[in-house]
Amino acid sequence: MQITIDDLVDFVRGAAFLGTGGGGDPYVGRLLLKQEMENGRSLTIIPPEQVDDGALVIPIAAIGAPSVMLERAPKVEALEAALRTLEAKLGRKADALTCIESGGINATLPLILAARTGLPIVDADGMGRAFPELQMVTFNIYGMKASPFVMTNDRCETVTFEVGSNHFAEQLARSTVMAMAGAAHLAIYPMTGRQLKDAGVPGTLSLALDIGRAIAQARRGRADPVQGLLDFLRTMPQPRHAVVLAEGKVVDISRETRDGFNFGRVLVQPFGDAAGEPAEIVFRNEYLTVRRGARFLAMVPDLVCVLDAESAEPITTETLKYGARVKAVGISTPPVMRTDAALATFGPRAFGIDSDYLPIEELVPA
Amino acid sequence: MQITIDDLVDFVRGAAFLGTGGGGDPYVGRLLLKQEMENGRSLTIIPPEQVDDGALVIPIAAIGAPSVMLERAPKVEALEAALRTLEAKLGRKADALTCIESGGINATLPLILAARTGLPIVDADGMGRAFPELQMVTFNIYGMKASPFVMTNDRCETVTFEVGSNHFAEQLARSTVMAMAGAAHLAIYPMTGRQLKDAGVPGTLSLALDIGRAIAQARRGRADPVQGLLDFLRTMPQPRHAVVLAEGKVVDISRETRDGFNFGRVLVQPFGDAAGEPAEIVFRNEYLTVRRGARFLAMVPDLVCVLDAESAEPITTETLKYGARVKAVGISTPPVMRTDAALATFGPRAFGIDSDYLPIEELVPA
Repeated sequence: MQITIDDLVDFVRGAAFLGTGGGGDPYVGRLLLKQEMENGRSLTIIPPEQVDDGALVIPIAAIGAPSVMLERAPKVEALEAALRTLEAKLGRKADALTCIESGGINATLPLILAARTGLPIVDADGMGRAFPELQMVTFNIYGMKASPFVMTNDRCETVTFEVGSNHFAEQLARSTVMAMAGAAHLAIYPMTGRQLKDAGVPGTLSLALDIGRAIAQARRGRADPVQGLLDFLRTMPQPRHAVVLAEGKVVDISRETRDGFNFGRVLVQPFGDAAGEPAEIVFRNEYLTVRRGARFLAMVPDLVCVLDAESAEPITTETLKYGARVKAVGISTPPVMRTDAALATFGPRAFGIDSDYLPIEELVPA
Repeated sequence: MQITIDDLVDFVRGAAFLGTGGGGDPYVGRLLLKQEMENGRSLTIIPPEQVDDGALVIPIAAIGAPSVMLERAPKVEALEAALRTLEAKLGRKADALTCIESGGINATLPLILAARTGLPIVDADGMGRAFPELQMVTFNIYGMKASPFVMTNDRCETVTFEVGSNHFAEQLARSTVMAMAGAAHLAIYPMTGRQLKDAGVPGTLSLALDIGRAIAQARRGRADPVQGLLDFLRTMPQPRHAVVLAEGKVVDISRETRDGFNFGRVLVQPFGDAAGEPAEIVFRNEYLTVRRGARFLAMVPDLVCVLDAESAEPITTETLKYGARVKAVGISTPPVMRTDAALATFGPRAFGIDSDYLPIEELVPA
C-alpha cells in the first residue's frame, strides 16, 4: 500500500476511528507526518508477509494521557532517540518499524519515524484499535516480551527497562510517564518478523486508510456518512458487525486526568426526546462501554466510536464537548481479539467492569 | 585501613551513627557483609589518594524507604546486576567502588559488592553522613552527573537512566522505586578517580569504624559511652563540635511512609521532669532538626543522632520506639558541607524548613 500527502487527511481520520476515542489527537500526528513528507522523505509500507522471518522489527509509540499530548506534541527527535537507544541495548539495528496500536497519534508516529529514518513500516499492529495499557496487545497475549524497552521525554532523556513481565513493564512505564510530566515516547516489544506475522493484527494501516476514504466518499455522495461507513465495514473482505448504538446530543461529560490516564463518562440524550433515556459512554483514554440504563449496548474489546452526527468525523475522548451532536457506533473486533487469553487481558473485567464480555452482535443485532 | 570480621559490629555501629537515623538498618548490612567475609572473600579498602586519576569509580547504594528495606533486605545479586548493567552502558569495567552515603546500610552494601567482585572500595563518600535524596551529595554540588545510572529490584530487573539533570534523576528514581514496591538497588554517579578526590568526602569509612570503636571502648571502660563518643569527636585530627541536645524518654512518635520516604516526628521528655518542655525531633528518613519550643537546637546538614541513653547505640528513625530512653546528640558537619552551594542543596530549606541554616556551635555552644 501507499500513503501520499494527499491521503493523510483520510488516513488519520480512519486511525482516529480505530482509536475509539483514544490514542491521542490524530491532527498533531498528521501535521508532523506531512512535514516529514514535504521534506521529501518517502514512506515505504510493506505487508507483514514481505518481512523476513529473522528481521528485527521495533514498534514505536507515544505513551501518556491524551490530554497532555494535546498540549505537548510528541517530538520526532525523541522517537528516534528511543529507537537508537533500544538498538544500542540490543546490539543490532532495526530492519523495520511497526505500530503498537493503530489508533490516533500512535498510528502516525511510527510512520513519521519511518519517513525520517528510511526504515520500512509494516502494515500490522498489536490490537487493531487503541488500548490504554502496554500489556493490552496481541504481542503480549501471544507470548512476546515488552522488554527491553526505552522511554524518552521531550529533551531526549532516556530510560531503558529490562524486566521479566509485561505487566510490570506497564507499571514501571506508567510511573515513569508521570515523572516525565504525563507524556513520553516509546520503543518497545522488539520482535522478529516471524513473531510479528504470528502475533500481529495485519492490515490495520490499510484499514485506517480505507475507513477514512469510505467516510470521505459518503460525504461527497451526499449520503449519510455514518451510514456509508457502516455499509463499508459490513462489506469488507472480512466483514464486521457495525451498528449505531446511540445518537443525540452530549448533555453531560465528566473528565479526570489521574494516574497517567484520562478517565471519564459521557451522557448522550436522544435527539428531540428530552424525556428519553440517555446513553452512557464510559472511557479510559478510549471509549470502553455504552449502556442505556442497566443494559449494555457494547463493551470492550469491541470498538466504540463517537462520530460527529453530520460528518462522521471521529471525536476523541479529550476533545468531545458538551452540546456536540453525535452518533456512537459499535464495531465487532476480529476473532483474534476475542479469545479467552485476549479477553483476560483487555476484556471488560481488565477495566474493572463487573461483567463478562458480551459480543456486540448479541447485544445489538443488525 | 582494614575491616575484618571482628570489626563489623563496631563498623556498622559507627555507620549507623553517621546515618543520623537513616540509610536503612545497619544490622541487615552487617549480616550480608559477614556472610561474604565468611565465604573467604577479602575486602580491599584504599584511601582516595591511591586511586588513579583515570580510574572508573562507581558508587553503589540502596534507595527507598528504610521501613521497607527492614522487611525486604537488599540482594547482593541485584547490586551486582546494577553494577554490570551500568558497566555495559558505559562500555567499560569499573576499577573501584565507593559509597554515596556512609549512613546505615549504604555504608555496608558497597563493601559487600566489593568483597563479592574483588574490586577495591575507596574510603570516601558523597556526604559524610546520610541524606534522603540522590542530588544531596557533594558529587552533585561539585558538578558531577548522576547519569547514566541503573536501578534494579530483587528479581534483578533493571532500569537504566540517561538524563541531564541530577534533580530529574532523583524524580525518576523516586517514581521507579515506588513502582518497585518501595526499595531498590543503585549504581550511580559513575566518576573518575580524579573526580572522587575533588568532590568526595574522604575518610568516612575510617570515621565510621573509629566512632564505633570509641563507643565500644567507652562501654568497656565503664564510662558514659555517649560522653566517651563526644570526647572522641572533639579530639579527632579535624575535631567536630559535639554536644548533647536533649535527653529523656520518647513520649510521642509519629511515622508515615509517603512518596517513597519515611516522614515523622519524635518528642523527647526530659528525665524526671514531667512538666519540662519536650524536645521535638523531625525526620525524613534521617533526623533533620531538634527544637525545644520555637528554638532550634540543631539543623541539617549538621548531624543529629539519637542514641540509647545507656549504651550509646544509634537508633534509626524506623526502629525508634515509644518509651525508649535516649540522648539526642548534635555534631558539626565538615566545612565542605556548609558552602552556599551545599546548603542550597541540603540545607534546611531543601527540606521545607522555613529557616536559614544556623550552625550547631552557635545554637548550642559546648
